[in-house]
Amino acid sequence: MKQRLLTPGPTPVPEETLLELAKPMIFHRTAEFRAMLGEVLGDLRTIFCTKNLIVPLTASGTGALEAALANSVPAGAKVICLIAGRFGERWRNIAKAFGIEAVSVTVPYGQAVQPEQLAKALADHADAAAVCSTLSETSTGVGHDVAAFGKLIAKTPALHIVDSISGLGAMECRTDEWQIDINCTGSQKALMMPPGLAFLSVSDKAWQAIDKNANPRTFYFDLKKARKNLETNDTPFTPAHTLIRAMRVSVKKILAEGIENIWARQRRFSEAARAGFAAMGLESFAAQPNVALTVVKMPANIDSSVLLGKLEKQYGLKLANGQDNLKGKIIRLAHMGHIDQFDILSALAGVELVLIEMGHAIEPGVGVTAAQRVFANK
Amino acid sequence: MKQRLLTPGPTPVPEETLLELAKPMIFHRTAEFRAMLGEVLGDLRTIFCTKNLIVPLTASGTGALEAALANSVPAGAKVICLIAGRFGERWRNIAKAFGIEAVSVTVPYGQAVQPEQLAKALADHADAAAVCSTLSETSTGVGHDVAAFGKLIAKTPALHIVDSISGLGAMECRTDEWQIDINCTGSQKALMMPPGLAFLSVSDKAWQAIDKNANPRTFYFDLKKARKNLETNDTPFTPAHTLIRAMRVSVKKILAEGIENIWARQRRFSEAARAGFAAMGLESFAAQPNVALTVVKMPANIDSSVLLGKLEKQYGLKLANGQDNLKGKIIRLAHMGHIDQFDILSALAGVELVLIEMGHAIEPGVGVTAAQRVFANK
Repeated sequence: MKQRLLTPGPTPVPEETLLELAKPMIFHRTAEFRAMLGEVLGDLRTIFCTKNLIVPLTASGTGALEAALANSVPAGAKVICLIAGRFGERWRNIAKAFGIEAVSVTVPYGQAVQPEQLAKALADHADAAAVCSTLSETSTGVGHDVAAFGKLIAKTPALHIVDSISGLGAMECRTDEWQIDINCTGSQKALMMPPGLAFLSVSDKAWQAIDKNANPRTFYFDLKKARKNLETNDTPFTPAHTLIRAMRVSVKKILAEGIENIWARQRRFSEAARAGFAAMGLESFAAQPNVALTVVKMPANIDSSVLLGKLEKQYGLKLANGQDNLKGKIIRLAHMGHIDQFDILSALAGVELVLIEMGHAIEPGVGVTAAQRVFANK
Repeated sequence: MKQRLLTPGPTPVPEETLLELAKPMIFHRTAEFRAMLGEVLGDLRTIFCTKNLIVPLTASGTGALEAALANSVPAGAKVICLIAGRFGERWRNIAKAFGIEAVSVTVPYGQAVQPEQLAKALADHADAAAVCSTLSETSTGVGHDVAAFGKLIAKTPALHIVDSISGLGAMECRTDEWQIDINCTGSQKALMMPPGLAFLSVSDKAWQAIDKNANPRTFYFDLKKARKNLETNDTPFTPAHTLIRAMRVSVKKILAEGIENIWARQRRFSEAARAGFAAMGLESFAAQPNVALTVVKMPANIDSSVLLGKLEKQYGLKLANGQDNLKGKIIRLAHMGHIDQFDILSALAGVELVLIEMGHAIEPGVGVTAAQRVFANK
């Protein structure tokens, strides 16, 4: 059966990129590899919309989050964590592991933290060393107004640190214009790569904090050492260099389409997916949806674990379940990276067929028709 | 021109493994992937010669070294670092980054730390929480008598922590019999994989120290969290799962040959390479050579940077230079992983040709003949 992967990471990788991964091994301490790394990091700067240095790490995205906090915030300092789901909570957990005091600004799952809440937290905690947020909260499908956060944070001494792991490359994200000091992402989402690489952009304001922090409490993720090595497009430790080589192909595809065009396409995808689900009677779980994935609630009598099992087994469609307490209650359809409008139609069509099979009273075609109307109106 | 990669990491990856890397993306939170990870970790146990839990990390080998020290040794405690080169020094640098006092037992580059030196250090520092050594010191080609270290350390409360990154899978290494408490390795050496994965085996003695350490000073490399996830063959963060999938193929090749057979083959390769170089008048740099790579000094009038440049440009043979102060003075020929006797002959033949071109007075064929004699006598 033909398989379609529509999970919020890993996402499908273009065939041209996969073939790069099958090429013979090369040595990494060479002018050729340094040129390759320099090229990928340069292209990523365009995708990040930044002039800042981008540091590559051989790690999951969480490695970049750890690198950001451990290097820039000393133990005993305070950070404000904006928490709208599992990945917001991760910021708090990382802070705790590094002896950093975390002030949590929390909203229920499905809601987004509002700029006014951040303004109040900044007023209450003028000594905060950083604010940590998530661009796209993958666990709920919520997108945050990081631009608004940036305006508020820039007036304070705090650093603006963003987890954009599942958003960057799909959802609008203007690192410099939005005054993001450390922007962290991973390879396996909208960047159309397998997992294994993480990247973070670091502003001058952030470098000043990093340079002042005498005890980074990390060796592997030491950003000062990485910066020194990047002067010659080198890395302190053996990088996952075959992933870097393959990534050249994926980022070139992004540049060829144009990052602003991709953002617009993603908005259309998101609108179409929501329209399709709404026509089937499935309501958005995210009050403020992000455009990288669409998360919807199940009708009262339908368990999403059963629906997703049938989708996969009968139709080769792999969507994601909710995590922890949300398991069985929502489905998450990712439409970032190497996904087009017909993949979305396929997913909607599959959900329709399974819902009908499970006794949900809808007419065949209502979901796909609603989505088609959005695509036709672009 | 046909290329031959003979560097001490990355090493050549078998074609069957490379083709696995080109397969379509899969989701990682599935029974299929958990079974795959469980299988790879089980096979690695055979290669490590251990019954201990093996923890996979998405990182360079250095990530495993950091995980080992940060989790098992609290800040302010003392470790003994056995230093015979650049990678021994890395242990000291990691200790420093984590506020651990490092007692260095140092020998000049090219020499090996002797068990008597460790015995004295253990007597002088009965309060040492751990001893950190390297099985194969890649920067000099030295191999350490880790079995002897293990006997001494096991009598003390100290943990026996080994960097076996460039040795494991080539050089004899019996984790349990040699009482290695934490054995750290990387994917891109004798395990015939691209870089991006690291693994460490953890003994009961080590878990006790880890469980007692209230402040692991790491989130990404938290071994307690990893252990909990491994109960269901899962990982705390998105792993580089396409590397795990491909690794299945490489480790099965190792099991098919048999780890003890590989050790014997590697001893033969090492003997042949040294015999070949000796016949060309190139002396071993390592006083106590390890069998994963052969490192030799240059004749007085020959700069290894020039020789290696010609080898690569004229013959497609990629060997490694010395690092730092040793640059230009030695060459490093790796013969671990997916390398056979004819690759070694090719390397020796290339070195002969370039030496002759550079005015070194040897007869064509002396090196390859000396190596052939070793292969014929097996």
